[in-house]
Amino acid sequence: MRAKAIYPGSFDPLTNGHLDLIERGAKIFDHLVVAILQNSEKAPPLFSVPERVEMLTEAIEGLGLDNVSVATFRGLLVEFATQQHARAILRGIRAISDYEYELQMALMNRRLAPGVETVFLMSAEKYSYLSSRLIKNVFELGGSVEGLVPQTVIHRLEARAAKR
Amino acid sequence: MRAKAIYPGSFDPLTNGHLDLIERGAKIFDHLVVAILQNSEKAPPLFSVPERVEMLTEAIEGLGLDNVSVATFRGLLVEFATQQHARAILRGIRAISDYEYELQMALMNRRLAPGVETVFLMSAEKYSYLSSRLIKNVFELGGSVEGLVPQTVIHRLEARAAKR
Amino acid sequence: MRAKAIYPGSFDPLTNGHLDLIERGAKIFDHLVVAILQNSEKAPPLFSVPERVEMLTEAIEGLGLDNVSVATFRGLLVEFATQQHARAILRGIRAISDYEYELQMALMNRRLAPGVETVFLMSAEKYSYLSSRLIKNVFELGGSVEGLVPQTVIHRLEARAAKR
Amino acid sequence: MRAKAIYPGSFDPLTNGHLDLIERGAKIFDHLVVAILQNSEKAPPLFSVPERVEMLTEAIEGLGLDNVSVATFRGLLVEFATQQHARAILRGIRAISDYEYELQMALMNRRLAPGVETVFLMSAEKYSYLSSRLIKNVFELGGSVEGLVPQTVIHRLEARAAKR
Amino acid sequence: MRAKAIYPGSFDPLTNGHLDLIERGAKIFDHLVVAILQNSEKAPPLFSVPERVEMLTEAIEGLGLDNVSVATFRGLLVEFATQQHARAILRGIRAISDYEYELQMALMNRRLAPGVETVFLMSAEKYSYLSSRLIKNVFELGGSVEGLVPQTVIHRLEARAAKR
Amino acid sequence: MRAKAIYPGSFDPLTNGHLDLIERGAKIFDHLVVAILQNSEKAPPLFSVPERVEMLTEAIEGLGLDNVSVATFRGLLVEFATQQHARAILRGIRAISDYEYELQMALMNRRLAPGVETVFLMSAEKYSYLSSRLIKNVFELGGSVEGLVPQTVIHRLEARAAKR
Repeated sequence: MRAKAIYPGSFDPLTNGHLDLIERGAKIFDHLVVAILQNSEKAPPLFSVPERVEMLTEAIEGLGLDNVSVATFRGLLVEFATQQHARAILRGIRAISDYEYELQMALMNRRLAPGVETVFLMSAEKYSYLSSRLIKNVFELGGSVEGLVPQTVIHRLEARAAKR
Repeated sequence: MRAKAIYPGSFDPLTNGHLDLIERGAKIFDHLVVAILQNSEKAPPLFSVPERVEMLTEAIEGLGLDNVSVATFRGLLVEFATQQHARAILRGIRAISDYEYELQMALMNRRLAPGVETVFLMSAEKYSYLSSRLIKNVFELGGSVEGLVPQTVIHRLEARAAKR
Repeated sequence: MRAKAIYPGSFDPLTNGHLDLIERGAKIFDHLVVAILQNSEKAPPLFSVPERVEMLTEAIEGLGLDNVSVATFRGLLVEFATQQHARAILRGIRAISDYEYELQMALMNRRLAPGVETVFLMSAEKYSYLSSRLIKNVFELGGSVEGLVPQTVIHRLEARAAKR
Repeated sequence: MRAKAIYPGSFDPLTNGHLDLIERGAKIFDHLVVAILQNSEKAPPLFSVPERVEMLTEAIEGLGLDNVSVATFRGLLVEFATQQHARAILRGIRAISDYEYELQMALMNRRLAPGVETVFLMSAEKYSYLSSRLIKNVFELGGSVEGLVPQTVIHRLEARAAKR
Repeated sequence: MRAKAIYPGSFDPLTNGHLDLIERGAKIFDHLVVAILQNSEKAPPLFSVPERVEMLTEAIEGLGLDNVSVATFRGLLVEFATQQHARAILRGIRAISDYEYELQMALMNRRLAPGVETVFLMSAEKYSYLSSRLIKNVFELGGSVEGLVPQTVIHRLEARAAKR
Repeated sequence: MRAKAIYPGSFDPLTNGHLDLIERGAKIFDHLVVAILQNSEKAPPLFSVPERVEMLTEAIEGLGLDNVSVATFRGLLVEFATQQHARAILRGIRAISDYEYELQMALMNRRLAPGVETVFLMSAEKYSYLSSRLIKNVFELGGSVEGLVPQTVIHRLEARAAKR
């Protein structure tokens, strides 16, 4: 069996920081599953789950990564990871506050599924301040997010803005 | 080519926290090289490099891990990693202050060798407070380190204490 | 007068981390009052205040601690502490982010009631990642919380799940 | 051209920590614009924007600072800063968690407007635990905020309390 | 048996931050032993251990605290605490970096002596930046430390400066 | 009087991170004095103070900044700042651990000289991991520091390496 990893998230929307991490993860693991969480209790999303699958798929194809796939899941992440026979959960770390929350989740996940390891990678420092939420805020206030998200996201954000 | 990783350190001495991380890393990577840094400018070590190789080798054999080897290196870590055709550097993270230093080193290493990724794993929380330095301090003040380091380290520490 | 301390919280639900801290606090202080905050503006609680009093009382009795009592309060914590003639507020610290918030609250409380000291204890490292919120999330997603909360909480969570 | 800075915030309400920072900023910069953010998506404010302008204006006059003005803005902070020909955004830093968020915002702002620098000053340590939110909480629970906010804020808070 | 605590440190020299913590600890515990560590491997101390005992004794008498005593110890802190039948080790916390190191030591001490709890108190915020090392640096560079250390320390520092 | 600031440091050697900060500071302040600390008790420096003055002067000239000068000082920073009639001390912040130490120093400096404010700026994120010490380590281990320090530093490092 070769090492497979899950990279979970909301990806609402996908940022260049996410893509950077997907590329890095694809070099370390035999197979990487980018998994969109569906049971988020957060506020209504900007993009629907099918839209997010589309944007991720397009962006990953654009990078020519053939060992990366896109999936969606509900419920506990570690259950999905176990069903997928994944050996690892991939998480990006940037800021310290991220890190704390990430460690807390990782310890809980380790307890729930001791066979699945959480693996942390750093995204490129030029993306260190990026988050989906910040992208949404800047876009809503009329700022440019060019260079911070892939072109497929730009197009959809512009389509949204045009409709308003 | 399959994914190979380097786990660098001083291992002076090896702790159960290190061993825990070696076990976790061995599940993620096809091959793991535990690499003892020789050009440390720190104070004189407690154990010589050959002693540290022996202790690591014994402890790894004790765990029955057949995809882990022990090596030593001088100079830049990323040069050693490149020579070894390693795709990743494995580092354990515990505390926040660790984390900061680790990120700083990882960013420098990424700049020096962009093809080698630094991968972070958490050791078990019961070892979260362990460090080689703390082991040395407690041992020097006459405290017990039973359960914190492998038996092979205990034996050698006791042999040292007997000689004094 | 002997030293009395207040251990405030929402305890929704009580976790083994809370219980661990109650045991530790009971050894340091002559009397410890576990105080459930009633004026929380958070989302509707999982358990009502009387249910939380019951679970805390059962769990504390189970530990055989005779210098610990359970109370509820509204309004400012330091006012309750002053009414109770408590000399200290007991708080658990785990993560750094906790710590920051805790220090901020402690400084404000010191300003409001200079005679009441905030005292920090660490819970056991095996509970370092536990929080009531995480327990609720895992339970809602169908994960097991066995070993993370006392049996009395398990029973009530199961009764809830059965009703759904 | 002389150096002008923007000090943005919600100021709901103004605290003595804010005032302390305004005084410090007024010594460093030729002109300081205290700018109230109007497009906050937060919960309904305690004080309306005109009330906040009034309180800020009164308090700044009370300090006799003639190079400080009060303004309001909507949308992106860096756009307002650019319109104002400001060379800097002034931010106070106290706790570590603040700091992280502040750095993230500052990096995004630098990307959106590279000519505007974010400048951090420390408020006095006696105000290190103060925040508008904490002031609101303490006031709502009946605690005294005397000495933590300027007299103009005290008067308005009391007027509110009388009306209830 | 009533609760006794050990407040360990180098106290080279004693600062007003230390004294503030001693006063706070004396209110929480029945008896507080201020314990000077003798086996520090640090650089040669500024004041000898007997001088430090004298300064601590004078300053504590000046505060009129009759449940505080001064002692010295060698070796493991937890062994000293156990010999003294202390139930707690008292530590001050200020900055985050302190905190991390303190937690690490506290976890190791808990492992070495599970019956001794580490208790954290905050010193007054006006002393939040004080450390013995900073006092020594400022004094050596000719700065005034008036108000940062007790008078007894000022006198001895001045006597030192006069001798040079 | 216009606002003058001091940017103190060891600059052993100057890095591109330092230069980035000097450029940013020069836009905020009317005059910026880059001040090399001479009474550092650290290990023997890599470059002498006159060499560091030369490298700083060359690099600053290379940037065409006419409101920046280079100076050296001994003793307390705030005394030098006061002699220079500076209103501010400029410091770069990157990591959290930096930040803590910086705040501690800034609070002490504020106490020693209340009229001098410490002002923090962020260097560019691409330099976030740079430090003089890391540059020295990489250079000593034979790694390339091209792009991390100005050309004038590269030339001198190479001249050093040739002599060995």
